Amino acid sequence: MKVLAILYRGAKAAVAEPRLLGTVENQLGLRPWLQSLGHELIVSDDKEGPSSDFQKHIADAEVLVTTPFHPGYLTADLFEKAKNLKICITAGVGSDHIDLNAAVKKSVQVLEVSGSNVTSVAEHVVMSILLLVRNFVPAHEMIERGDWQVSDIARNAFDLENKVIGTIGAGRIGYRVLQRLVPFDPKELLYYDYTSLPDAVAKAVNVRKVDDLKEFVSQCDVVTVNCPLHEGTQGLVNSDLLQHFKKGAWLVNTARGAICDKDAVAQAVKSGHLRGYAGDVWNVQPAPKDHVWRTMKNPLGGGNGMVPHYSGTTLDAQARYASGTRSILENYITGKAQDPQNVIVGKGKYESKAYGQR
Amino acid sequence: MKVLAILYRGAKAAVAEPRLLGTVENQLGLRPWLQSLGHELIVSDDKEGPSSDFQKHIADAEVLVTTPFHPGYLTADLFEKAKNLKICITAGVGSDHIDLNAAVKKSVQVLEVSGSNVTSVAEHVVMSILLLVRNFVPAHEMIERGDWQVSDIARNAFDLENKVIGTIGAGRIGYRVLQRLVPFDPKELLYYDYTSLPDAVAKAVNVRKVDDLKEFVSQCDVVTVNCPLHEGTQGLVNSDLLQHFKKGAWLVNTARGAICDKDAVAQAVKSGHLRGYAGDVWNVQPAPKDHVWRTMKNPLGGGNGMVPHYSGTTLDAQARYASGTRSILENYITGKAQDPQNVIVGKGKYESKAYGQR
Repeated sequence: MKVLAILYRGAKAAVAEPRLLGTVENQLGLRPWLQSLGHELIVSDDKEGPSSDFQKHIADAEVLVTTPFHPGYLTADLFEKAKNLKICITAGVGSDHIDLNAAVKKSVQVLEVSGSNVTSVAEHVVMSILLLVRNFVPAHEMIERGDWQVSDIARNAFDLENKVIGTIGAGRIGYRVLQRLVPFDPKELLYYDYTSLPDAVAKAVNVRKVDDLKEFVSQCDVVTVNCPLHEGTQGLVNSDLLQHFKKGAWLVNTARGAICDKDAVAQAVKSGHLRGYAGDVWNVQPAPKDHVWRTMKNPLGGGNGMVPHYSGTTLDAQARYASGTRSILENYITGKAQDPQNVIVGKGKYESKAYGQR
Repeated sequence: MKVLAILYRGAKAAVAEPRLLGTVENQLGLRPWLQSLGHELIVSDDKEGPSSDFQKHIADAEVLVTTPFHPGYLTADLFEKAKNLKICITAGVGSDHIDLNAAVKKSVQVLEVSGSNVTSVAEHVVMSILLLVRNFVPAHEMIERGDWQVSDIARNAFDLENKVIGTIGAGRIGYRVLQRLVPFDPKELLYYDYTSLPDAVAKAVNVRKVDDLKEFVSQCDVVTVNCPLHEGTQGLVNSDLLQHFKKGAWLVNTARGAICDKDAVAQAVKSGHLRGYAGDVWNVQPAPKDHVWRTMKNPLGGGNGMVPHYSGTTLDAQARYASGTRSILENYITGKAQDPQNVIVGKGKYESKAYGQR
């Protein structure tokens, strides 16, 4: 059996820190185990273009392992080429780098390590909300450059207390965000989703559903995006929807970059219509050097909380998704049933509604 | 009656943003009201040296209003000069800029707006913990400079979940920090304090008291300082205590800078013994341009979350402490009783135990 893993390169960091499991160097800890079973493991970060390791080895790999942080994009065309492929495993959460319709058609299973880093991402969301609302980045930059002018920071710094905070998507990540926001005493918590939380679950965090997306965003001081990327959510936050946001609202997106329109968001931040935008996901990854989200600022010089895609790949998360990837592989090898919450596409059919299937 | 207010300068920001109430320009909104009552109001940010407005006008002012963000330091010597002074009001929380023993001796009352910004500061603490543990600053700087190397960030990024977090001081701010940390599922919450929380109050956040400070810090992955500055807490976190911290722990201090030894902290961050230090308080404010806390980094280039002193002066907090300052003044003018929780020093005696009086 040939296993192909597309991971990010850790370089010196991966040598110095063996807990960086999700790297090319440390190979999710899979090599000794797979080799002891007589399987072949190919690991690379080279994923773009027809002569890349990814496209070369996908032709006869039986298993593809990849991560959302440095994804091998498995298109319908590549599925045609992947004659031997049986299972795709996402070491992490979010399988939009795989053409799921093609996977269904070709009877290739798609699985995620669903619980592995939802808490990591939820923490990143709450951190990002706080640092935008409280105007952290310009304050830290002021200190680094040797200045001290409290009023320039305070004029755009607020408390999270008594704000209306809404999540697009109240699934495993979105709901964890809501749980962590409760003791901040928000004015109200709102959610927008294709499905409804059970009453008791909604009541536990005192969250109210708003069915119309425009109405939803118009009520929020802070909007956070916690839904998967699929045909129905691509470009969901575009210039039209942004017009319905409150003036001066904050937007946090750690879901997938392409859910928000790159240029519309940048324009809204620059005009001050959005007071800030933060997150770790980009429409292309790695983001090009001149990506406008790297440097966009609001009119007062703040409002940018962007980072590279790492919220779900903390060292704590890597331990969990490395072990989860091995469990999925073990189940696959031994023919044992997979944990249902990990299955996005089963044999020839969708098993999850999260990617837009109703 | 002459009222002297020492506030920070807002400059253009204060003109553009009238909600910047705590500035020299916007004068806590007190001028029209005080003048309508026939009182004199002197407002300045000039507070250092014998010829400063502060030292000039303290000679005959009856009321001193100042903030922790740009404090007029009222020493025992200046109390001798302040022949007419009856009451000092801190627009905010924390009155360590006033020699409280001298205030008792001279029968000058000292009051704070005690509830005005405790939530603001507690939010800043939780934000600072998250951004240190999750390694935010180097990640954002990487994006700004056009790079993308996930492993260099991930190798020093962790989840807050399952960590041991302890607060030195579980009063109005420290307890609010604990409340906000509960849903992050810490391994354990700990506190160290001169007094004990009532059982039900401790149980509500599932926090355990540790009586010995060295033992306390040795158990914590994250330590946060939430106690007042007084003789008993000055230099509390020094090189001796730091030796008892876990290697790689994080430290957050939004209480007062002088509670932590400046050089010992910088040395611990630089060696990596502390993985990071964050906060908004400094031993001298404004901090000098070459203050080591501005630029100290851990061996992996992160671990600095410093900002100027503003956590308690968000626009939301300014509205509260401006109105609280006016209430205290109204009570003083009309002879009405003050809210007991605002009184640090009453007429000739301490009313609060928070500043080290037992």
